Amino acid sequence: MSRFWSKTVKNLTPYVPGEQPKLSQLIKLNTNESPYGPSPKALAAIASANTDGLRLYPDPNSDSLKQAIAKVHGLKSDQVFVGNGSDEVLAHAFLGLLKHEEPILFPDITYSFYPVYCNLYDISFTNIPLDEDFAINTKDYIRKNGGIIFPNPNAPTGRALPLADIKALLESNTESVVVIDEAYVDYGTESAATLVNQFPNLLVTRTLSKSYALAGLRVGYAVGHPDLIEALERVKNSFNSYPIDKLAMAGAVAAIEDQEYLHSISKAVIQTRETLVKDLSQLGFETIPSQANFVFTKHPSKDAAAIATALREKHIIVRHFKMARIDQYLRITIGTDEQCASLVNALKEIV
Amino acid sequence: MSRFWSKTVKNLTPYVPGEQPKLSQLIKLNTNESPYGPSPKALAAIASANTDGLRLYPDPNSDSLKQAIAKVHGLKSDQVFVGNGSDEVLAHAFLGLLKHEEPILFPDITYSFYPVYCNLYDISFTNIPLDEDFAINTKDYIRKNGGIIFPNPNAPTGRALPLADIKALLESNTESVVVIDEAYVDYGTESAATLVNQFPNLLVTRTLSKSYALAGLRVGYAVGHPDLIEALERVKNSFNSYPIDKLAMAGAVAAIEDQEYLHSISKAVIQTRETLVKDLSQLGFETIPSQANFVFTKHPSKDAAAIATALREKHIIVRHFKMARIDQYLRITIGTDEQCASLVNALKEIV
Repeated sequence: MSRFWSKTVKNLTPYVPGEQPKLSQLIKLNTNESPYGPSPKALAAIASANTDGLRLYPDPNSDSLKQAIAKVHGLKSDQVFVGNGSDEVLAHAFLGLLKHEEPILFPDITYSFYPVYCNLYDISFTNIPLDEDFAINTKDYIRKNGGIIFPNPNAPTGRALPLADIKALLESNTESVVVIDEAYVDYGTESAATLVNQFPNLLVTRTLSKSYALAGLRVGYAVGHPDLIEALERVKNSFNSYPIDKLAMAGAVAAIEDQEYLHSISKAVIQTRETLVKDLSQLGFETIPSQANFVFTKHPSKDAAAIATALREKHIIVRHFKMARIDQYLRITIGTDEQCASLVNALKEIV
Repeated sequence: MSRFWSKTVKNLTPYVPGEQPKLSQLIKLNTNESPYGPSPKALAAIASANTDGLRLYPDPNSDSLKQAIAKVHGLKSDQVFVGNGSDEVLAHAFLGLLKHEEPILFPDITYSFYPVYCNLYDISFTNIPLDEDFAINTKDYIRKNGGIIFPNPNAPTGRALPLADIKALLESNTESVVVIDEAYVDYGTESAATLVNQFPNLLVTRTLSKSYALAGLRVGYAVGHPDLIEALERVKNSFNSYPIDKLAMAGAVAAIEDQEYLHSISKAVIQTRETLVKDLSQLGFETIPSQANFVFTKHPSKDAAAIATALREKHIIVRHFKMARIDQYLRITIGTDEQCASLVNALKEIV
């Protein structure tokens, strides 16, 4: 604490990201990265952009990237916003669209960055508890609010809502913005992006960090009504004119255009997930049904933190959250078949 | 305007960056980019980082980059903050270090993003007029304030303050943070980074977009007391855990380590600037003494906006600000010798 800090800084409780260990001989199943590399077309596009042209600023409006995203979703460019990772997109959405008089609503167990944004921008919020199966019940959100946000599938549970539930929520909640954070949508969840033309208060956010295997490139986006996008643009243009660098732009455009590759690696992750869930079950683990590239699982008799520590000794890193309701769970990213087999073997020795 | 916008968004007046035209046959002297490409070592480092490893998140703390920067300045890593361009670094400094009860102070004619940040974060400010020669008089800043910020050299004037003036200001102003924005310092200005160990309230910001010729990569940084850096880290970690992507990190480290290249291209720009100033003088232009990679110049009889339009017709773009006191000036980026010769020839026909 310093007398030079603003009151805002003094009151912050920053987000703590999953560890990025510098050791290379680890099985890293802690931050939901793809076990497969990005599209070779993305790597080729980056190589082509890696020239003397880096002396020039990128396109501040990222037009080529917006066009590629709009095409995939059957939308127009003015329905697309892009940012330096979906965390930046979310930050701008909190300040631009979710800061109102009434508290915003999000689940008690969800992406732990949401309360951090609220803290940063002085936004009041109410946590809506997940039900006992760790499911979001959208009926619980039918109340006065300044906005609603949740991931679908939810994190760190992996549990998804059917699109019909989201549609019903939007039909009931027309006076505030509903943000559906689809970071993990490509692993078996129906996207709400198809509802964007129907509901002017719906914003859907996406990231290239998971299914596109480009966490290292930092690109995320949102789709929604042009009025919502304009709010995000206004915040962005009051913060940083050029959030997407030229290499990220080139790589992201090529990755998004290569939907075939996206589907192939997403499918591989889904298959590995189904095998892992069965293997965990045979070891006694209880796993929440997952539509994500991770599973949320607990063992009935072995302490979750102790398992995480024991796995770490075997050079396998998973994520454990010291939080009420979920401190007996582990969040385990789906790796390759080989990595998941190593995990299962390690767990056999531990539990 | 939409009912879904927050009050913050409704009140914003976003920054307007210089145009990034998509035509290639232009002489682009409008956004102060380097006429020379980045260090070949930076391009090589990016090529080496362009691998399947992009599936993983970057180091959220950017340790390697902080170490490279610390080494150049003879500082420690905890005295360094990095961001997605210096605009992001400045944004976090406004929210984290410049938002206090008293208004902050900056020149009436300066980087036009400063009032935008104040607007975004609800920070009150007082403009301190430049003197009639467009110089900053640091004595004007000796008054109660919530913080002080100005570029050295100033933008868009290009005029620099001697280090002794900044030191005197810091000796008088010990109760609030002083931010010296050194975007253009490498073209002949003494850096205040050498004062960081002496003054715990000094923050110095830098960019790789100008002298390092990496505007397309989006990297900026700040150096200061660890307490100031910690404030910036707290804001950053409440906003976006991973602002620097893996390619930008690799390129920035290599560029910063190649100080020899930096000095060689900065020196070339300085030489071209001196020639251009003489040539402009022969055409009757009055140019403010510049220590930057641009000049701020006016013609005694020809309207500045008209000159800019006429240059544009000849495919040369310069920047004109429609603002009180400076609407008869043009800001012209220093290009190559050939580009500046073309500019001078075009101006000969116009004035």
